[in-house]
Amino acid sequence: MIVVKMGGSDGVNLEAVCADIATLVGAGEQIVLVHGGSHETNLISEKLGVPPRFVTSPSGHASRYTDRQTLEILVMVEAGRINKRIVERLQQSGVNAIGLSGLDGRLLEAKRKETLPIVEHGKRKVLHGEYSGQIERVNISLLRMLLETGYVPVVAPLAISHRHEALNVDGDRVAAAIGSALNAQVVVILSNVPGLLKDPTNEASLISQVPLSQAQEYLERFAQGRMKRKMLGAIDALKSGVKRVMIADGRVEHPLQRALAGWGTVIE
Amino acid sequence: MIVVKMGGSDGVNLEAVCADIATLVGAGEQIVLVHGGSHETNLISEKLGVPPRFVTSPSGHASRYTDRQTLEILVMVEAGRINKRIVERLQQSGVNAIGLSGLDGRLLEAKRKETLPIVEHGKRKVLHGEYSGQIERVNISLLRMLLETGYVPVVAPLAISHRHEALNVDGDRVAAAIGSALNAQVVVILSNVPGLLKDPTNEASLISQVPLSQAQEYLERFAQGRMKRKMLGAIDALKSGVKRVMIADGRVEHPLQRALAGWGTVIE
Repeated sequence: MIVVKMGGSDGVNLEAVCADIATLVGAGEQIVLVHGGSHETNLISEKLGVPPRFVTSPSGHASRYTDRQTLEILVMVEAGRINKRIVERLQQSGVNAIGLSGLDGRLLEAKRKETLPIVEHGKRKVLHGEYSGQIERVNISLLRMLLETGYVPVVAPLAISHRHEALNVDGDRVAAAIGSALNAQVVVILSNVPGLLKDPTNEASLISQVPLSQAQEYLERFAQGRMKRKMLGAIDALKSGVKRVMIADGRVEHPLQRALAGWGTVIE
Repeated sequence: MIVVKMGGSDGVNLEAVCADIATLVGAGEQIVLVHGGSHETNLISEKLGVPPRFVTSPSGHASRYTDRQTLEILVMVEAGRINKRIVERLQQSGVNAIGLSGLDGRLLEAKRKETLPIVEHGKRKVLHGEYSGQIERVNISLLRMLLETGYVPVVAPLAISHRHEALNVDGDRVAAAIGSALNAQVVVILSNVPGLLKDPTNEASLISQVPLSQAQEYLERFAQGRMKRKMLGAIDALKSGVKRVMIADGRVEHPLQRALAGWGTVIE
């Protein structure tokens, strides 16, 4: 069982990922693919006259303020545009993909964060009407049923709240949650860098091994921007039962086979 | 087994439909819900600077010219925005809905029409690069598996071609195809009129019974605009094994229970 996370449109080579999935599924592997969609949502939001608003949390993380209007665009782009583009491409590679969001069959249940504490111009504030959440439950039986009948689930990073509202959730955390729920042997996070870098401006400075016991330290010392979330997702996954997380380059040929062969940052 | 078709945002009372589905599912019925999305796709297309283009076929039917760019917006709006809005609303009604498009798990396979014969300014022409199709196969085993495990499938009217391309398909025809593939006892088509009307400007002129043997004649005499497609879908469904089709009012309270009780146009 392998869980793969890829971005929506951030330079990851979709055709190459799909070809690798076809090879692995052909060899009997069970695979769940989780995708993102942040970048493309921003583009469509701008065009629709609802520009995204990014905020900084008190702990210094950048995140999107997801009010209901933003959520609806996010749902449209991630569960519609990106999810079905990936499903279409996998079908072209001979993989019987089935696209789902976390809403469908209550695949991902999350606790809603209704308020978002932020820091703006050095001051603490609280934004209300936030629609994001933290995953608390994965509908394992739905995923297992699909996997056992030969489908490859493709999951958009949305969840459903206890009050049945759609929520925005982080794609890396979705991969971690699904990986641990299914006892995956490995979670592969593909991105537009070769892995965790000592120096983010130098791709040759790849850190190839991170022991779980030092992962938090590595995160604080080396991870910047989106890499912070990937490291948090990796730590989450490992703490809840996944044996190995790979953060690897999704821009190359055979990105998935390379990652499984150890190219990238191994956290275990 | 009941197949229900509703429009995307054409006045059909979504909350009332969801409440009825909850009641029926609670009573042990199996239901598949098919939706549309044409109207909302037009609105989003305009906002994105890709206004829809409507054409007239040589036989006088109005239809959308679906080039690849239009198809991508259609996929985004139908499989993303509308499908997940319905899934969220059904979940709020206590129904474990699972949203799918015809691409997912090859739910609907269709033959692509690559060219579109049209009449423009009295002249026949052919448009190329069309992405629409006619349904040839329904993945019955996927639907049955979901229904038997307690899920309510919510289907966006898209299909996959033999060459694995996403295609636009007519929602009423989708309901007909699924209804006949599953041997549904009834297909209910909800819309913003009480049924087939003798006089489209007078809602009191409802035709309450149409025998299948005369359905084509009724279509030609009384159906206008979108009602033509609903009648074609109904005839399709009945010819391929569905016992009864109801065309009924979706704007009222208890739209589905009323339709099942015989309010609307019964075709059988």
